[in-house]
Amino acid sequence: MKVVLAKDILKSNDDKAAENRRAFEKLGLFTLNLISSPGSGKTRLLENTVQRLSSRYRIGVIEGDITTTRDAERVARHCEQVVQINTDGGCHLDSKMVSRSIEELSIDKLDVLFIENVGNLVCPSEFDLGESCRVVVLSVTEGDDKPEKYPYSFDRANVIIINKIDMLEHTDFDMARAEEIIRQINRDAVLFKLSAVTGEGYDAWIAYLENHAFRKK
Amino acid sequence: MKVVLAKDILKSNDDKAAENRRAFEKLGLFTLNLISSPGSGKTRLLENTVQRLSSRYRIGVIEGDITTTRDAERVARHCEQVVQINTDGGCHLDSKMVSRSIEELSIDKLDVLFIENVGNLVCPSEFDLGESCRVVVLSVTEGDDKPEKYPYSFDRANVIIINKIDMLEHTDFDMARAEEIIRQINRDAVLFKLSAVTGEGYDAWIAYLENHAFRKK
Repeated sequence: MKVVLAKDILKSNDDKAAENRRAFEKLGLFTLNLISSPGSGKTRLLENTVQRLSSRYRIGVIEGDITTTRDAERVARHCEQVVQINTDGGCHLDSKMVSRSIEELSIDKLDVLFIENVGNLVCPSEFDLGESCRVVVLSVTEGDDKPEKYPYSFDRANVIIINKIDMLEHTDFDMARAEEIIRQINRDAVLFKLSAVTGEGYDAWIAYLENHAFRKK
Repeated sequence: MKVVLAKDILKSNDDKAAENRRAFEKLGLFTLNLISSPGSGKTRLLENTVQRLSSRYRIGVIEGDITTTRDAERVARHCEQVVQINTDGGCHLDSKMVSRSIEELSIDKLDVLFIENVGNLVCPSEFDLGESCRVVVLSVTEGDDKPEKYPYSFDRANVIIINKIDMLEHTDFDMARAEEIIRQINRDAVLFKLSAVTGEGYDAWIAYLENHAFRKK
């Protein structure tokens, strides 16, 4: 019974995600779904990224949180179109929530849409939102064993970002080992190593976004 | 439909949790359910804690992970009775998994049982395992805004541990602010601030465990 219903939920989510994807593709809108543990630095990454792109690209953000509008407020400083989704305890965003949110945005006037998922390295991975690109963020303070322990998140990522590299010297995170494990799980993902604090590694990430958002400009 | 089934699942979980709790109480066994984000240091905390207690207390550990037996292997160095639960993608432990695990342990020969939940600050909070004490761990590298953003985890905790305080100087974590928010959400939880690396703050945590495990000795 439980399994049947779970399949129904996922099927219904996939259908709506396909609908979202068609709408995004029709507009040539590059959409990114950001997934990570709480506190791995998604919001700060987003703030800095939007700040760097906002003079040249029209950017929208959907902020997913269990409660509070803190992240949306932070991002809104650098970006005009922001929608907050509060899941009220829910552990992930789904494609229906995103579908309702894009009705509140003028997505035909956007070049890039970021969707910051609920801070959770497990459940969001099951739910396609219709995004063009799935980004999984891992911070070095979480430990280099996380890709191996949460493989179902890492194996579906198009982009994997190792964040907080400025903290490397204060941890026992082994970058070579982390990369090796990531490559065993996901050979194709584009990998970025960066620090939102020092700005190190951002240029490659920004260049990647520009290459993909370029379609529309 | 979805809501009804979710209620059924939670009700069925609560029933089995009550059964586990009766079994633990009958034996005077102090049981702790450790909940946190991935990478907040639960396993290292557990390793050091078991190491400090193992000469005087008989300790069992149930390790919850999505996949791998890495954490169980780490903890087993300091502790004889360890059981690994792999949820195979599942985002939390439930009381039935714990019930099956305790059949593999000689719980009548234990003074303290630690249950390390799946690394997830959202879903595990919904599922009572029958524990005596719920412990939520937050590391300073995750940011001081997390209690406010994940209130449903923090408000049900009996103990809240702020971990990795040796990293404080490298972050913008505001301890006074974090404590203030925690107290708004949960006035009664016992709060510990510690570092698994330097050992700072461990004495109070160990003393707390000794006070509660003392019943049996």
